[in-house]
Amino acid sequence: MINGNTEIIAHIGYPTHTFKSPMIYNPYFEQAGINAVVVPMGCQVPDYPAFLKAVFSLTNIRGALITMPHKVTTVGLLNEVTPTVKVAGACNAVKRRADGKLVGDMFDGEGFVRGVQRKGLSLKGKRVLVVGSGGVGSAIAASLAAAGIAAIALYDVNTASATALGQRLQQNYPSINVTTGSNDPHGFDLVVNATPMGMNEGDPLPLDVSRLSANTFVGEVVMRTEMTAFLQAAKAQGCAVQVGSDMLFEQIPAYLEYFDLPTTTAEVLRSVARLSY
Amino acid sequence: MINGNTEIIAHIGYPTHTFKSPMIYNPYFEQAGINAVVVPMGCQVPDYPAFLKAVFSLTNIRGALITMPHKVTTVGLLNEVTPTVKVAGACNAVKRRADGKLVGDMFDGEGFVRGVQRKGLSLKGKRVLVVGSGGVGSAIAASLAAAGIAAIALYDVNTASATALGQRLQQNYPSINVTTGSNDPHGFDLVVNATPMGMNEGDPLPLDVSRLSANTFVGEVVMRTEMTAFLQAAKAQGCAVQVGSDMLFEQIPAYLEYFDLPTTTAEVLRSVARLSY
Repeated sequence: MINGNTEIIAHIGYPTHTFKSPMIYNPYFEQAGINAVVVPMGCQVPDYPAFLKAVFSLTNIRGALITMPHKVTTVGLLNEVTPTVKVAGACNAVKRRADGKLVGDMFDGEGFVRGVQRKGLSLKGKRVLVVGSGGVGSAIAASLAAAGIAAIALYDVNTASATALGQRLQQNYPSINVTTGSNDPHGFDLVVNATPMGMNEGDPLPLDVSRLSANTFVGEVVMRTEMTAFLQAAKAQGCAVQVGSDMLFEQIPAYLEYFDLPTTTAEVLRSVARLSY
Repeated sequence: MINGNTEIIAHIGYPTHTFKSPMIYNPYFEQAGINAVVVPMGCQVPDYPAFLKAVFSLTNIRGALITMPHKVTTVGLLNEVTPTVKVAGACNAVKRRADGKLVGDMFDGEGFVRGVQRKGLSLKGKRVLVVGSGGVGSAIAASLAAAGIAAIALYDVNTASATALGQRLQQNYPSINVTTGSNDPHGFDLVVNATPMGMNEGDPLPLDVSRLSANTFVGEVVMRTEMTAFLQAAKAQGCAVQVGSDMLFEQIPAYLEYFDLPTTTAEVLRSVARLSY
């Protein structure tokens, strides 16, 4: 129940119609007795820099969830960002520190990482393949790097995109072995589809699934269905898998911690969420 | 239930703790199936001009409720204001017109006016006394003038304040007979206490109640209790009365109409409101 003591989490993007966060966070806040509300704020590109500054002048702003098309722009509008933001080249969480500075982090990849970790995969020293070097692939690569992997292979049909991500990774994490140019999943501990392949019926699989071995953990970002054709094929190979929507629900505890709010688990969030996707 | 199609009504002021509107509007929106939400936004004086502009760049902003300390400042920040705003010298409702212009109106007094009208008092051609020429007294005088009264007497212990209000009234409504300097309620159709007298236990009455005749309608802005000492005394004289909180609830339909939202009655709003005052 919104009242004069309610704190705002601004959910900024455009268009707003597809926003899911209000229907996850707000029922959780209600259930947990947290006097905060996620408010969708439709903001177009030319208005965004001034709006971001203005909304953080509010006395009851707790933080902002940044989404399309502002995640990249945000990086240049803040006083400080994390290495994860620098590698991802994008930022989806902003808060105002006690000293008044605006700082940002990026939790898209953190959601993926927390999900596989909670399924029992320790990432320290592991070898991973991330197929797709766009926004979500970059974010996942950045968070995997922060989680302590030893080696990462990057692949994108746009080779320049994979190369650029590799350079940002290497610059921020010099000790990680970075390679690019192949989507062969053979011999990796973790393989991730971070391409949009699977969003449309009849899409080809993002990589040669027959080259997966059973002890490779396989993750997915597509959430058109829970078990995509790719995950089904990986499971048939004997692999443990993580569905696309886990990335969504697993990143929310990271946001809650970042905003200094009482946190919870992805399971609780799934149980209170009022959405269909 | 807030989702990606929810429209925002920004409730802007500082401090926000005493805000009542979210607990009236939001339960009404929920009950009426209107996908809009009143969001308290704490904004301090130096940040307000930039914030007002920025918040109206949002694609899903429906309007703004402006409160302390920004009602006076707002007048100078808009492209167009109504005569009610000009007389009141303050603005508490802002919207963005289809042409992109920011326009404002003032409904504090409109709430008072709608209340007495719905209690059967037609204001056309009437003679009224408004005691207190501060923010709320000015707003009531402005809305009474817009409602077609013939004559208004203004009184304030600060005589300059009553004189200035009289001049603004006369300038915008040349045909109304405006006098200042007396709080004698004898011979008026409507008498209003628009002073804070009655907010504290033991306050003197704002005028000499023995001079009220039974056919004078008496209104009040103080809402510490429903029947203030002033209203009790007026009722004892045989007068019909209007309580302070009517002004609050009766102005909300005016806001809803202004924001092009389905409207309702003060009674419905009272029944859905979740507040204690």
